[in-house]
Amino acid sequence: MSEKRKVKMGMIGGGQGAFIGQVHRIAAAMDSEIELVCGAFSSDPEKSILSGKALYLDPSRCYPDFNQMLQGEAALPASERMEFVAIVTPNHLHYEAAKCCLEAGFHVLCDKPATFSLKEAIALKNVVHESGKLFGLTHTYLGYPMVKRAKELVAQGELGTIRKIMVEYQQGWLSQKEDEDSKQAAWRLDPAKAGISCCMGDIGVHAANLAEYVSGEKITALCADLGTVVDGRRLDDDGAVFLRFSNKIRGTLLASQIAIGEENNLTLRLYGDKASLHWQQEEPNTLIIKRHNASSTIERSGIGEGSSFVTDAMRVPAGHPEGYIEAFANLYRDFAHNVKISRNGTLTASKFVPGIEDALRGMAFIEHVVAADRSDTKWHDLVTTHSPFKDIT
Amino acid sequence: MSEKRKVKMGMIGGGQGAFIGQVHRIAAAMDSEIELVCGAFSSDPEKSILSGKALYLDPSRCYPDFNQMLQGEAALPASERMEFVAIVTPNHLHYEAAKCCLEAGFHVLCDKPATFSLKEAIALKNVVHESGKLFGLTHTYLGYPMVKRAKELVAQGELGTIRKIMVEYQQGWLSQKEDEDSKQAAWRLDPAKAGISCCMGDIGVHAANLAEYVSGEKITALCADLGTVVDGRRLDDDGAVFLRFSNKIRGTLLASQIAIGEENNLTLRLYGDKASLHWQQEEPNTLIIKRHNASSTIERSGIGEGSSFVTDAMRVPAGHPEGYIEAFANLYRDFAHNVKISRNGTLTASKFVPGIEDALRGMAFIEHVVAADRSDTKWHDLVTTHSPFKDIT
Amino acid sequence: MSEKRKVKMGMIGGGQGAFIGQVHRIAAAMDSEIELVCGAFSSDPEKSILSGKALYLDPSRCYPDFNQMLQGEAALPASERMEFVAIVTPNHLHYEAAKCCLEAGFHVLCDKPATFSLKEAIALKNVVHESGKLFGLTHTYLGYPMVKRAKELVAQGELGTIRKIMVEYQQGWLSQKEDEDSKQAAWRLDPAKAGISCCMGDIGVHAANLAEYVSGEKITALCADLGTVVDGRRLDDDGAVFLRFSNKIRGTLLASQIAIGEENNLTLRLYGDKASLHWQQEEPNTLIIKRHNASSTIERSGIGEGSSFVTDAMRVPAGHPEGYIEAFANLYRDFAHNVKISRNGTLTASKFVPGIEDALRGMAFIEHVVAADRSDTKWHDLVTTHSPFKDIT
Amino acid sequence: MSEKRKVKMGMIGGGQGAFIGQVHRIAAAMDSEIELVCGAFSSDPEKSILSGKALYLDPSRCYPDFNQMLQGEAALPASERMEFVAIVTPNHLHYEAAKCCLEAGFHVLCDKPATFSLKEAIALKNVVHESGKLFGLTHTYLGYPMVKRAKELVAQGELGTIRKIMVEYQQGWLSQKEDEDSKQAAWRLDPAKAGISCCMGDIGVHAANLAEYVSGEKITALCADLGTVVDGRRLDDDGAVFLRFSNKIRGTLLASQIAIGEENNLTLRLYGDKASLHWQQEEPNTLIIKRHNASSTIERSGIGEGSSFVTDAMRVPAGHPEGYIEAFANLYRDFAHNVKISRNGTLTASKFVPGIEDALRGMAFIEHVVAADRSDTKWHDLVTTHSPFKDIT
Repeated sequence: MSEKRKVKMGMIGGGQGAFIGQVHRIAAAMDSEIELVCGAFSSDPEKSILSGKALYLDPSRCYPDFNQMLQGEAALPASERMEFVAIVTPNHLHYEAAKCCLEAGFHVLCDKPATFSLKEAIALKNVVHESGKLFGLTHTYLGYPMVKRAKELVAQGELGTIRKIMVEYQQGWLSQKEDEDSKQAAWRLDPAKAGISCCMGDIGVHAANLAEYVSGEKITALCADLGTVVDGRRLDDDGAVFLRFSNKIRGTLLASQIAIGEENNLTLRLYGDKASLHWQQEEPNTLIIKRHNASSTIERSGIGEGSSFVTDAMRVPAGHPEGYIEAFANLYRDFAHNVKISRNGTLTASKFVPGIEDALRGMAFIEHVVAADRSDTKWHDLVTTHSPFKDIT
Repeated sequence: MSEKRKVKMGMIGGGQGAFIGQVHRIAAAMDSEIELVCGAFSSDPEKSILSGKALYLDPSRCYPDFNQMLQGEAALPASERMEFVAIVTPNHLHYEAAKCCLEAGFHVLCDKPATFSLKEAIALKNVVHESGKLFGLTHTYLGYPMVKRAKELVAQGELGTIRKIMVEYQQGWLSQKEDEDSKQAAWRLDPAKAGISCCMGDIGVHAANLAEYVSGEKITALCADLGTVVDGRRLDDDGAVFLRFSNKIRGTLLASQIAIGEENNLTLRLYGDKASLHWQQEEPNTLIIKRHNASSTIERSGIGEGSSFVTDAMRVPAGHPEGYIEAFANLYRDFAHNVKISRNGTLTASKFVPGIEDALRGMAFIEHVVAADRSDTKWHDLVTTHSPFKDIT
Repeated sequence: MSEKRKVKMGMIGGGQGAFIGQVHRIAAAMDSEIELVCGAFSSDPEKSILSGKALYLDPSRCYPDFNQMLQGEAALPASERMEFVAIVTPNHLHYEAAKCCLEAGFHVLCDKPATFSLKEAIALKNVVHESGKLFGLTHTYLGYPMVKRAKELVAQGELGTIRKIMVEYQQGWLSQKEDEDSKQAAWRLDPAKAGISCCMGDIGVHAANLAEYVSGEKITALCADLGTVVDGRRLDDDGAVFLRFSNKIRGTLLASQIAIGEENNLTLRLYGDKASLHWQQEEPNTLIIKRHNASSTIERSGIGEGSSFVTDAMRVPAGHPEGYIEAFANLYRDFAHNVKISRNGTLTASKFVPGIEDALRGMAFIEHVVAADRSDTKWHDLVTTHSPFKDIT
Repeated sequence: MSEKRKVKMGMIGGGQGAFIGQVHRIAAAMDSEIELVCGAFSSDPEKSILSGKALYLDPSRCYPDFNQMLQGEAALPASERMEFVAIVTPNHLHYEAAKCCLEAGFHVLCDKPATFSLKEAIALKNVVHESGKLFGLTHTYLGYPMVKRAKELVAQGELGTIRKIMVEYQQGWLSQKEDEDSKQAAWRLDPAKAGISCCMGDIGVHAANLAEYVSGEKITALCADLGTVVDGRRLDDDGAVFLRFSNKIRGTLLASQIAIGEENNLTLRLYGDKASLHWQQEEPNTLIIKRHNASSTIERSGIGEGSSFVTDAMRVPAGHPEGYIEAFANLYRDFAHNVKISRNGTLTASKFVPGIEDALRGMAFIEHVVAADRSDTKWHDLVTTHSPFKDIT
């Protein structure tokens, strides 16, 4: 099929001190299928170069900014040149960076949420389509084997007709005023960098994405109650949402960053007319299926069930816990697989990686939740064609 | 203090085949402080008498109906006469039975919800006050030691200022059409017997009561999304509610009877600015306290912590699980204690048992949730002074 | 079948301050099938009488000692007379009390271990057989619904051929020197009252009994390592045992009273060639079945599976936790059932209650474990015909 | 300190189809501190070379056997040459490979158990000491953050004086006859390749190592009961051991490969006189501390507690599960750190990695357990100076 060499990756953002950039690098390195070859790791040119050197990169490929990176890499022979770019900056920089990379002919794997606004996401979709390049979005939680297994069970009809979808994402890391000083917190709470929402934009969107992915249904309307619990914040740090999915399925989404003592409690429950399904991110290798007047089933990753769609996402046998980084690495491995395929010109995403449609739906979710919260009317339709806010479209 | 003899109890409802009546009797018998002496167990006189005999009652005190019971018992010497009546009929009969008992001079311990409507609850409150008799309401879950411990921890300020209250009650026993035929299901789904709501009236009201009890806060406003998931039903079998408590505390209440595979999953989570508290009815002897950037604590019933308010609610040492029936028995034991105290004329409820205020708030919750669900407006104030429905006030 | 009246019970031991006597009374009262009518609650005559009065007994049936109780009750009309005696004294008094009751024509339900020594147990077996009366032994844990379900699953061949039996019983209540002062601890650590062993005699014997009951296999040989961890004690407070069961099945039994922080952690695991079974007393309503390269099953009490042998042991629906007291009450209810049956002269134990065979095996287990611990040889056969100790036979 | 380049690694064993070799490679790659540069992946020269190419290695460094690798690498400039060798063959080849590598001047990181026999381990110790090179042993479970935290808590005296150590390792992957055909099973059940033991040699040794590491105590004597449960096997597949540790601490070690339905259930419990500690490999990010008559504590990786000894072993914040591969990668990262330090001639193992002493103790444990099982005497001292078997020393 494709040439026998690792996939070459560049990175924008993720300089020293950043959290998520390092996670992306670990995930990319894990399976030895991807090689980080260059980067523009910071908006501060000096810090950008230093960060690259600390990662053992060739100094000539530690660029001061991403425009120089795009030029420098384009000038290299195809076999040495980076093939895709991982974008791990704060939200407000995603669109510009992704646009430039795609237009320069590089595939893009972008951190979520995809853009600063729905308007940008709509624009990005056009850029992606015109570029003919791959665009991936790191909705990490879709990389877990048991999330894939959950999707498979639903698709196979194990739950029967879905009646009710409950998803929640509880964190406590922003429960204190003093938590706001960290690098990760500062930009997430700043409307100029994070966009219109903190809690819903950062984690609510993960929950919505997970619920849609596993159920195969789309959110069509919502009613929201967001809150800013810690004084002085300008964005939401807590919220609850009633959902309607396609096929009139009823649902709820609860998310918080001030749920003190919670770590990263993302939990999905789907109730059908034949069975229900329960998954928790903090114990990711377990899936519980409950039935009516019958015993429940515990499925564990690596044990018996599941097609290759599921088992390909595991590296070690059952009982050897795989976690968040492995889930993340699955997205990278699958994206790299697609990049390899595309080397000969084909653009078939043969492995599933969340992409521009998830980007669009995510941004639409965020803006409609915030708009619904501000309204006295109960229900609001969710559309991806335009923003509910006149002033920000 | 009071005379040395067991407290004598009569019962209305709970004839052969009824579920909850038998639970009341087991709870009453458990601590050998209460003696069932008479009953009118069914609206069918013959069945009523047979039921009493099967319970080893004196045949002369197996009454064909509750009016004859009130007359018959009144005619007995005080030392033999029943002292209180347990009412365990379907909802629509509670008010009439409770009113007659109270007016005949007997204390009443009534199953929940207290009445058929908020209007009846308001009327009942007057009856209780005029009678000078004790009125208790079996909100069973308040009888658990660790629920009491949770209340104590909140009151002691262990959680700091409460910011967020999450309660949910998931059941699956009505998830199938064919589940409707059982005796328990039939009346709960019949508006003429259950009242305006099935899911919220049967279990939502427990969740609301538990949240208010432990937090010490009152629900002041709500927004509701109820559903009738199984075709052909006339009442809700699933629902979600946004809550506002006193002090602007934000909350959510989720309840369902169609959550397939769920048994009796009542879960309470309280988040303060210092710590959070987690309790699940299905594992009732455990309470988890989570903190910010610090280890969590597992409190177990019978281990160290807790004042006598908590430890009095236990019968065996830690590690010997006590359950639902013991929690129920705690209400009975405490009510019997109060009855004993009142023998000499005092009416001091020295032990806490949920009562007429819980009755009123419960009925107000049910009616406002249903009204809010029917409205296009998001938020609705909760008041106990009148029904939100003109036609049913 | 039998006359329509409650079964009448007397009690020996269990005076004020005793723990287990009160548990027996609660268990007996719970289902309103048994009536406590008399007792000799203490070796101190005055305390005995006071204890009875505090239990609302007829003063004429609060006896100063058990001999007077046997005489007094025998003099009453058959319909008023006690029908069985619950023996809840320390171990060293069991034999004498049981013997007298049986010989006086009363059935006996005795706390475990049955006697002070294997020699006494052998003698008691003869007394039981000659008396023609019922003898029950309160191996409480056999009363749990899911223990019965476990036995049923094994008997049905769900696990295939049993290969390995692991049972453990961890407690921490004697982990401190100062724990020795309580009434419960004092006699258990006193060789004159408890017998030859503390940990193995008090809880190891429960573990052995549970393993034999569920598996249907008998312990045939053992190798033991007992310890006295807290200085100054004269009996074991910790121990480990290798087991051989019938059919050469390999097993282990671990027990401790100094396992600090443990409550009452009795855990059973059975491994067959088709599946394994896992049960924990602290979460008694759950049974887990694990299989080879296949998903596991969670069985919950009240959900679907199980014959009436199992479901008769429950009082409330799934999700309403039943616990230790309910398990205890199941033994009482079943024993009372057998007592009723016997009223007309039949002595068919139609419901299973642990009895004199369990008594014998329990005492044999205790003595052989202690003997094996004292030996330098690894393996020792377990027999019920005579003690391994010459000096104490 | 040391030159700024990745640490270069070669590998012996781990060709296509091998399980553990791939895990080693993933662990080595994860943190981008180590670069796999060469290998002799199979005893079949052709397969060895093909395996290397599939890993994107320079064809000139895909060697047909490890002797050629040692020669080939020695001939390269120091800055390109491999710096250490990972040995991932079956047990019987470890010693020869390790000896050759060390004598050729390369550091060695070896899979466990270290050698085929205690005699070889003693010899290897001499080779290591004479070589002046680093020798690491991949006792993976020591790489978990919460295992390090456990060790830290014990060392800080949180448990008080240790009284009792319970470790168990239950697997079910060899429970069926037909499980014996896999590549992993075949050599483990073959005495010519695995050595004197299957279950104890493969996993019992992990359990013993973990218990010694966390407690800081050494096993001094033991009594064993091993079994060969599945017919026709020549080595043990199940076993139980009584342990004595230094300071007369009592302990038990239970291990099985026929515990059907078990995945990789390695569990450690330490009981002191102040508190106890509980850790399970299948839920590795949680550590529970239980106390006497006081609430328990849940420590979670990434939450508050723990020195850098613990926190350095984590990559992502609390609630983002890290697992087996991350634990493995911690050993690799720490070993690579030590390799870097040694570049300038120093041989200070500044980061802890299990080494030759663990190798020796592990082999001594295996041989003494097998010898003890074959003896009729109960207790046997454990020494590392010579084998208990005359014929195999």
